[in-house]
Amino acid sequence: MFVRLLTAWVLGLPLLALAQPQPSIDRPFSDADLKAAASLRDRALQGSGAYEVVASLATEIGPRSAGSEGDRAAVAWALNKLTQLGFQNVRAQDVTVPHWARGFAEVAIKEPWPQPLVAAALGGSVGTGEEGIEGDVVQASNIDALKKLSRREVEGRIVYFNTRTERTRDGHGYDQAVRVRLDGASAAAALGAVAVAIRSIGTDSDRLAHTGIMLYAANTPRIPAVALSNPDADMLERQLGSGRPVTLRLKLSARDLPPKRSANVIGEVAGSGADAGAAHEIVLLGAHLDSWDLGTGALDDGAGVAIVIAAARLIRELKPAPKRTVRVVLFANEEFGLSGANAYAAQAGSELARHVIAMEADLGAGPAWRFETRVPGAMLPKTQFIAKALQPLGVERGGNAAEGGSDLNPLRRQGVPVFDVDLDATKYFDYHHTANDTLDKIDAKALDQSVAAYAVAAYLAAVASGDFGRVPASAAEK
Amino acid sequence: MFVRLLTAWVLGLPLLALAQPQPSIDRPFSDADLKAAASLRDRALQGSGAYEVVASLATEIGPRSAGSEGDRAAVAWALNKLTQLGFQNVRAQDVTVPHWARGFAEVAIKEPWPQPLVAAALGGSVGTGEEGIEGDVVQASNIDALKKLSRREVEGRIVYFNTRTERTRDGHGYDQAVRVRLDGASAAAALGAVAVAIRSIGTDSDRLAHTGIMLYAANTPRIPAVALSNPDADMLERQLGSGRPVTLRLKLSARDLPPKRSANVIGEVAGSGADAGAAHEIVLLGAHLDSWDLGTGALDDGAGVAIVIAAARLIRELKPAPKRTVRVVLFANEEFGLSGANAYAAQAGSELARHVIAMEADLGAGPAWRFETRVPGAMLPKTQFIAKALQPLGVERGGNAAEGGSDLNPLRRQGVPVFDVDLDATKYFDYHHTANDTLDKIDAKALDQSVAAYAVAAYLAAVASGDFGRVPASAAEK
Repeated sequence: MFVRLLTAWVLGLPLLALAQPQPSIDRPFSDADLKAAASLRDRALQGSGAYEVVASLATEIGPRSAGSEGDRAAVAWALNKLTQLGFQNVRAQDVTVPHWARGFAEVAIKEPWPQPLVAAALGGSVGTGEEGIEGDVVQASNIDALKKLSRREVEGRIVYFNTRTERTRDGHGYDQAVRVRLDGASAAAALGAVAVAIRSIGTDSDRLAHTGIMLYAANTPRIPAVALSNPDADMLERQLGSGRPVTLRLKLSARDLPPKRSANVIGEVAGSGADAGAAHEIVLLGAHLDSWDLGTGALDDGAGVAIVIAAARLIRELKPAPKRTVRVVLFANEEFGLSGANAYAAQAGSELARHVIAMEADLGAGPAWRFETRVPGAMLPKTQFIAKALQPLGVERGGNAAEGGSDLNPLRRQGVPVFDVDLDATKYFDYHHTANDTLDKIDAKALDQSVAAYAVAAYLAAVASGDFGRVPASAAEK
Repeated sequence: MFVRLLTAWVLGLPLLALAQPQPSIDRPFSDADLKAAASLRDRALQGSGAYEVVASLATEIGPRSAGSEGDRAAVAWALNKLTQLGFQNVRAQDVTVPHWARGFAEVAIKEPWPQPLVAAALGGSVGTGEEGIEGDVVQASNIDALKKLSRREVEGRIVYFNTRTERTRDGHGYDQAVRVRLDGASAAAALGAVAVAIRSIGTDSDRLAHTGIMLYAANTPRIPAVALSNPDADMLERQLGSGRPVTLRLKLSARDLPPKRSANVIGEVAGSGADAGAAHEIVLLGAHLDSWDLGTGALDDGAGVAIVIAAARLIRELKPAPKRTVRVVLFANEEFGLSGANAYAAQAGSELARHVIAMEADLGAGPAWRFETRVPGAMLPKTQFIAKALQPLGVERGGNAAEGGSDLNPLRRQGVPVFDVDLDATKYFDYHHTANDTLDKIDAKALDQSVAAYAVAAYLAAVASGDFGRVPASAAEK
């Protein structure tokens, strides 16, 4: 997961009045459709095959950050896997991706009490050069607090952001905390800081730092930026709490390399619609193929890759196939700039209008607990049938402010309606973007339940009478 | 904690018959003694000061493996802390310690699917040389299983032990699993293996390897030995499970350095016994000052250091002081060969006979849950008074096969009776000997409760009528 929009919560609509299908709306699903959806659900729960897919990706490929050897191998893996599993129109869509190399990160407190700290460069950070950087630490709780400091208080120093990440089911704790990771370096550089360290954006207490993309503003110096593991952030804060000046030393070899070729990998379950119009309509099931480099990308986003592949595969086994095409898109480089998402939207052209619904799985391995939508108001009654089909899975109806996952941002901004099957993120940010993102963190049963939810929602979108319209970009959309 | 003897469970005696003080035995404690013990308990629970002690050690010193700069700094810290807290006869007892340097450990699967693995050299391992070692992996579940393999199956290969550590309250899961860490390399070398890797001896699922001492037999080649983190052990096992040959590559720069000087740090609460005999009798409260190098040694054994210091300090505040001397001994180098323990016992001379009871805190930060003893049978009724005084803390009575902690091995073998206040080890082996051994893993309330238990037991031992005799070494004792 990259950055989700806070607007998702602001736009939530009360839906109590819509809890039952409205008698005045035509039924968008036949009894056979709803029965097929129920059978998909049951088959997924009995064993969706998703665990085997993510185990294969984590074991045979592992780390696959944009431009790396693992990235290249992952594209080959995905083409092979989709073909092997019987998908149609399997293809790679060329994407140029940035290539950043992490190198090493040596970070230590020098004064008052020397201690080595576990740290990781933030994605995109510049290095320090051979000589490293040493400086006194000035602490701030967030960017707003930093901006209240004078240039004199910050200049020549290393800014440390102590922002903590709240543990939440829907991940909003991450959304609130992540701003210091994204913009902290430039905010600090604007006041003359020489480097930035942040408390890891994560909810664990392990000596493993959380990486993730950071952004440089065009008008400020590019200064190195690292995340400290949470216990190391505690250590730094205890030393700062002593009232003595605290000196930090950083040496990073992070650097940018020339861009590389990667690819979105696409496979389809072709629509069976008798009229070509329906068969050419698309329900998009997305996930991202890349991962950060520290872990094996089992949760982020191997689980998502597995969920959408397994969901589409179950749909493929239905007779008859749904009238619309279910398209799996495994996006290139979500983590380091949404390269695949932007390339997909840019190349979609006239096809864009045929995207009836888009969904992405990129918040771990489940279980699914909520169904959100972003459709025009007139389409809400139709989505209530889908919500009802998800109820036996323990999935509750959320609002109509779904954001669809980072890779769907470009589509959503162009009006494509999206569904969110929200996965339980309570523990997700313990592991997110760390070395600890490994297969053992995935529960196969929760993964199967997530597949069930994605399969039901995607299938019903693919058979519904009529489409879900277009959603005009709201003023709140970025 | 080093290695505890399995005999502790074998020798457990049924004590039901002793649940109540026997009327035929003289009461070994006055009402005033028991009231003082209760007040110690209550004061500890209200805030023992132990958390501040361990926070100071973890923050100001941190890693302090034998012979390191941190070891030297820890001795100075301890002398200063004991003096500052009002201990008497504060002194350093010279100890020569071995000095092993970890260096780096680069471990990776090369075939069939390349993956970097998180690993740590086992304490005492030799390095691989610049060229590293590469070999096919042969898997064994433990040393007995390895010995069933032929030399042809092992020779030239890297042996991987997949032994798992069971999560237990009393730590016996660790005792059962640790043998592969201690003796696995020599057992493998005896069959011609070129290196050994083990699944970490630990109960967590974090990408952090568990180090710990390993031993080389005199008659086998010294081959490099590493522990893989548990998720990395999973990865290796999945690749082995594919049925394809698995090749591992190791490069370690671990090496022995010349021995260094370190010290046991000792401080006392002098006995108030009117006759010099009682005042010269000693109740020993031990912990070890060194730690492994990967973490900050907050749990192992900063917590123990803090518990015994805080317990003795509370006893010091009592008026009158107990008749016997309560001696705190912070042992040098427990982890890498019990140097301090051996030096202490060797230098004790005639003083050894005046050690009435010895106790050690070296199993984390509590809470205390069980009280075990190792006293002659005739002394058991006396210990029941102590057990009863511990009951309000939720501490149950265990058997009479206490082992007293690794640093007390030499004393115990010479007949000194020991008490164990068992600390709850359910989570201890998640963090033990890893980078994750940090202050945030300590709960101040559980630590205070542990101090209460140690203080009560030590105090009552220091005021009891008569001593606790001597325990003849049993046949089962090593």
